[in-house]
Amino acid sequence: MGAGKTKRMPRAVREQQMLDAAVRTFARRGYTAASMDEIAELAGVSKPLVYLYLNSKEDLFTAVVRREARALTEAVRAGARPAGQPADRQLWNGLRAFFTHTAQHPDGWAVLHLQARTHGERFAAEVAAARAEIVAFVTQLIAAAARAAHRDPDLPEREVAGLAEALVGAAESLADWAGATPGVTARQAAATLMNFAWAGLDDLMRGRPWVPPGDESGDGAAARAG
Amino acid sequence: MGAGKTKRMPRAVREQQMLDAAVRTFARRGYTAASMDEIAELAGVSKPLVYLYLNSKEDLFTAVVRREARALTEAVRAGARPAGQPADRQLWNGLRAFFTHTAQHPDGWAVLHLQARTHGERFAAEVAAARAEIVAFVTQLIAAAARAAHRDPDLPEREVAGLAEALVGAAESLADWAGATPGVTARQAAATLMNFAWAGLDDLMRGRPWVPPGDESGDGAAARAG
Repeated sequence: MGAGKTKRMPRAVREQQMLDAAVRTFARRGYTAASMDEIAELAGVSKPLVYLYLNSKEDLFTAVVRREARALTEAVRAGARPAGQPADRQLWNGLRAFFTHTAQHPDGWAVLHLQARTHGERFAAEVAAARAEIVAFVTQLIAAAARAAHRDPDLPEREVAGLAEALVGAAESLADWAGATPGVTARQAAATLMNFAWAGLDDLMRGRPWVPPGDESGDGAAARAG
Repeated sequence: MGAGKTKRMPRAVREQQMLDAAVRTFARRGYTAASMDEIAELAGVSKPLVYLYLNSKEDLFTAVVRREARALTEAVRAGARPAGQPADRQLWNGLRAFFTHTAQHPDGWAVLHLQARTHGERFAAEVAAARAEIVAFVTQLIAAAARAAHRDPDLPEREVAGLAEALVGAAESLADWAGATPGVTARQAAATLMNFAWAGLDDLMRGRPWVPPGDESGDGAAARAG
């Protein structure tokens, strides 16, 4: 786009264009190899303007991580609304929103899931905070479902936390897989995960944990953990 | 250790010491920040000797990734032996081996799971190959269990592949969580994942998939995917 045109754009719009160019470049080149020249060119602006608006490559990457993390967590929360539905329905809606968003924003997902976790504490902390928010949301969902389904008061808090970590990790893995496997839709990925997770969680909440075979140690820790 | 002592060591032993120092340094500093000086010092050898044995920082990192990936896949395979056990028992044993190994080798796990995936195609390909081997192993396990349990001939191949990705992703997430949560044992992490996954897989294999609510589109895609 020509300089004459960009001059008349509001700052907020141009900044979003820079972030769009940055997320694409960071996702495809990696943080280290991505150059501010390439980002500026892709955004159709001069490099000094990128520095003027976003200060440094590090700040630009932080802004990208923050924007993409917020968009993902908001999509999942919006998908899982309204609250008060049965837990499996809420989870199903949240998962479809997650897989739809990651399929529609593959570069944003690559930045969050691959790039941002290994290029310094600052970026890793941004992603960890967003992930913790989603894990906390899933934890609440599982705890509420357990309270609704279980005669027993609650699953142990640590077990619920572990189940939420397992679910989020499975979702992350399936998002990568769906992105790399032609023809897998967001809906299919969500259905696979529900098939994997929900019937299992459902059994667990009804007080039917998987019981380990009587092995060497035979200390029943697995049954206790369930 | 003194130079006089290291001189009498066989090359293979010294090389392993260099790799031990490297995995620790890469895990804690990250690939970019890790210095060959620090690695040499931690290994108790001179920097030229590290270059003589392992050529470059890139080759050293590749050697580390390869060694750690092989150790992990071998631990999981050894844990899941002997073949011919019931699938849930084999999975339980494999998972305990996985969580035990990652708990005992936190630096190796950090290199594989965090560092190696974002510092260039070459490293990412090494890790992807090891991960694909584990996914293929889990896929076989699920397919065999489905054949044993299901009246229907098979789960669709793509669905089995998705379930294996979900299980491996859940295991990766729980390994990070167990590493960061004091007091969570390998056995508890494995039991949490079995509770999460197996009862769900078990229901699925018995032809009892989770059924999505009759939502807007109502096209039954989820049921088909299951």
